[in-house]
Amino acid sequence: MTDFFQDAEALDKNALETGTVLAPRFDANGLVTAITVEAGTNEVLMLAHMNEQALRLTLETGLAHYYSRSRKSLWKKGESSGEMQKLVELRVDCDQDAVLVIVELTGRGAACHTGRKSCFFRAAVPRGDHFGLKTVGKPPLFDPKKVYDQ
Amino acid sequence: MTDFFQDAEALDKNALETGTVLAPRFDANGLVTAITVEAGTNEVLMLAHMNEQALRLTLETGLAHYYSRSRKSLWKKGESSGEMQKLVELRVDCDQDAVLVIVELTGRGAACHTGRKSCFFRAAVPRGDHFGLKTVGKPPLFDPKKVYDQ
Repeated sequence: MTDFFQDAEALDKNALETGTVLAPRFDANGLVTAITVEAGTNEVLMLAHMNEQALRLTLETGLAHYYSRSRKSLWKKGESSGEMQKLVELRVDCDQDAVLVIVELTGRGAACHTGRKSCFFRAAVPRGDHFGLKTVGKPPLFDPKKVYDQ
Repeated sequence: MTDFFQDAEALDKNALETGTVLAPRFDANGLVTAITVEAGTNEVLMLAHMNEQALRLTLETGLAHYYSRSRKSLWKKGESSGEMQKLVELRVDCDQDAVLVIVELTGRGAACHTGRKSCFFRAAVPRGDHFGLKTVGKPPLFDPKKVYDQ
């Protein structure tokens, strides 16, 4: 049970999966998975996580907030890089343990910490009897060394 | 260290995040997160997980395989419903703990077990001082009771 969101445990399967109550199913670590896409193009930009505070702040402020598992803290996207994300729409999946964050990019338009628009800039390709990666995305929009290492 | 994929631990940060070696970072449960989108439209269809076997089978057979956390078993998508997913491209994110599975839908074109094309068919909307959900996706393409409860 959370303060702001409804309790998913109180809903039956049908209400949870097809109803009109927002009841995010935070996992044992208090997180839901967040897929962030660009409004209009639907391009998948990044995958991250939100705790209750991040999800609430995203909805209330209209700016994407996440929870950094590595830093163990709330992460207002763009606070360091300037690459903030304006919320256009937030969706939940059927069992409400994942959210789809539809955003407009700001700044240079890079969601990835490597300076690229999307974190998904490499595709698997056959290499011998295994698979390797090739770059399919566009070149970086900023130099991460100049943005983060100040 | 896995049999088929390279060991992510053996790579430095730069090689892992921008290099050409496919080295998925399976988590403590042996899973990576998989975002599945429709080729062409980029529509996000579902979020799921893959273990090493599922990822390898997806790459080798060209049909999306996942790992069902609830059933604790390999899950060949569409085996029950007929809604198989043909792989067009598989991408990894910068830190290689998530994959983007770009697919063509088969069958009725529904990725969601509720019969809808996408699992993300509800959007958050303000409701009083909280938020509720409204349906934004199209109606179901099949009746799950008829497909699964046989």
